[in-house]
Amino acid sequence: MKSFLKIYTEQKSQVDKKLSVILKKREPKSLYGPADYIIQSPGKRLRPILVLFSAKAVGLNFKDAYNTALSVELLHDFTLVHDDIMDNADTRRNRLTVHKKWDTNTAILVGDVLLAVAYELLTKDIKKNEKKIVSAFTKGLVEVCEGQSLDKDYELRKDVSLSEYIFMIQKKTAAMSEMCCKIGALLGDGKKEEVKALSNYGKYLGIAFQIQDDLLDIVGDENEFGKKIGGDLIEGKKTFLFINALEKSKGISKKKLLEVIKNKGIKEHELEFYKKIYTDLGVLESAKNEIEHYTNKALLGLKILKKKEDRDFFTWLAYSLIKRTN
Amino acid sequence: MKSFLKIYTEQKSQVDKKLSVILKKREPKSLYGPADYIIQSPGKRLRPILVLFSAKAVGLNFKDAYNTALSVELLHDFTLVHDDIMDNADTRRNRLTVHKKWDTNTAILVGDVLLAVAYELLTKDIKKNEKKIVSAFTKGLVEVCEGQSLDKDYELRKDVSLSEYIFMIQKKTAAMSEMCCKIGALLGDGKKEEVKALSNYGKYLGIAFQIQDDLLDIVGDENEFGKKIGGDLIEGKKTFLFINALEKSKGISKKKLLEVIKNKGIKEHELEFYKKIYTDLGVLESAKNEIEHYTNKALLGLKILKKKEDRDFFTWLAYSLIKRTN
Repeated sequence: MKSFLKIYTEQKSQVDKKLSVILKKREPKSLYGPADYIIQSPGKRLRPILVLFSAKAVGLNFKDAYNTALSVELLHDFTLVHDDIMDNADTRRNRLTVHKKWDTNTAILVGDVLLAVAYELLTKDIKKNEKKIVSAFTKGLVEVCEGQSLDKDYELRKDVSLSEYIFMIQKKTAAMSEMCCKIGALLGDGKKEEVKALSNYGKYLGIAFQIQDDLLDIVGDENEFGKKIGGDLIEGKKTFLFINALEKSKGISKKKLLEVIKNKGIKEHELEFYKKIYTDLGVLESAKNEIEHYTNKALLGLKILKKKEDRDFFTWLAYSLIKRTN
Repeated sequence: MKSFLKIYTEQKSQVDKKLSVILKKREPKSLYGPADYIIQSPGKRLRPILVLFSAKAVGLNFKDAYNTALSVELLHDFTLVHDDIMDNADTRRNRLTVHKKWDTNTAILVGDVLLAVAYELLTKDIKKNEKKIVSAFTKGLVEVCEGQSLDKDYELRKDVSLSEYIFMIQKKTAAMSEMCCKIGALLGDGKKEEVKALSNYGKYLGIAFQIQDDLLDIVGDENEFGKKIGGDLIEGKKTFLFINALEKSKGISKKKLLEVIKNKGIKEHELEFYKKIYTDLGVLESAKNEIEHYTNKALLGLKILKKKEDRDFFTWLAYSLIKRTN
């Protein structure tokens, strides 16, 4: 029997292969060149994988879901390109961001066209449930925009609660993985309960994934993670760790955490000091517990899936993401 | 019998009324506030009108096409918000642009969410031809992005030909009006020939409309037009007039026109001088001839429409646009 990693890697290779040619012949090059650069950036291809395996879990062949799988990857890339402008990020996964390699105007338009081509691909494979699939995809897009807006709002606020944070990442991150599973299941014309179970899997997996991302900002390895360790603290981002720390802290710790908000971030040499505050307050442990909590919620409904191999794959995938270092 | 202007105005009012409430209850306000500001900017609502009357021409009631009509208006607004960032425009129709009233990051995200909500509205009314309608809408979006990219490319080039210019505005402007007519006709489940005739009407109308827009930059009235007269020359844009002038000019005129490209525009006090070059070379006449040519092409296929009142409305609309001053 093949290992799950091998199955994942096989499908990831298929996605990579198709991504490598999809924009090559399109004109104008001034637009599709930078778009091609971003879609070929190495990545986990988690979202297309969710589409493919959700479709498979309700009986569809992989080959009938590739265009839809590519579609969600392009949607993801659209969010990355525009978010990187907003965050003024210079690099992503050790490569220059589009607005740094070219310019902001190019990056705006590249994001736009990636979204346009995403819709183009989305409708290609659909044979049933057209309206439901386009609606689910669009709902994911709307929520991503709302989540990004909330994230920007939170940067300016002192009093963001953990439940507000969860609400935000549901929109910014989890709505997208939920949508991937949902449209995969709809593409394969899955039963209502299957669509629901897979959607929930995607949703809770997304929340767990984002908290893990927040955690990796502190405990990750810079080379593997592809982002600067401590970057969230340096930029003063309202992550799970920060909000949890603020809620738990008193006295001097609280004062120092409030300074992060006031100064819109910390200096690099203060990183170890803040890491210690996090450790002392037990926020790393809390994050791990939350991640486990949402992972368990993700897995809860999967028993409805017919084949053991599908249930096992999704379980393996969820645990791999928890244990990931990048 | 009602005048065509009255029929147009009635439907425009319906569109305005619906636009005024559509985003009001949505959260977060940081996102939908600026989005609401832009969709409520006064405008001709030409694109929704094309959807509504194309749907009517194949037998649908207006009331069954409003969501689709609003959808194309939001798509149009998405392009305006992002284009205004790229053009660094301070005002549009005498109001501050979104990125000036708020900031660039807000404007990027506002454009994105307008596009998202456009897709949301698009699928609401559809009962037939789902896939065709979403594909046509998406094709319009892809072409708008490509057209905008070409427009940016042309700014840096000396040798843009008139046929390249027509190719660009087909994508940047005409693809959208073509799409509006097409999805209106598809929404009403029109016959293949009706869909084709209406699509062509929208396409050629769009080309005529854009050349008229270029012309108004020189002959328009600043208050009515809502944009600075001569703005295209001041910014050094490759309009129909400029490209036509460059093709026709010799000697000193050619030298002065090439200076516009080199200096990326002209100074305001040079405007009268360049207007005289345009007049002497007869480019205003050429523009008027082209506008008439494309208007006639637009009307050519309309005889297939069943009702005289529909044919007459589209004819009236085309001629109103030619004669417009804003």
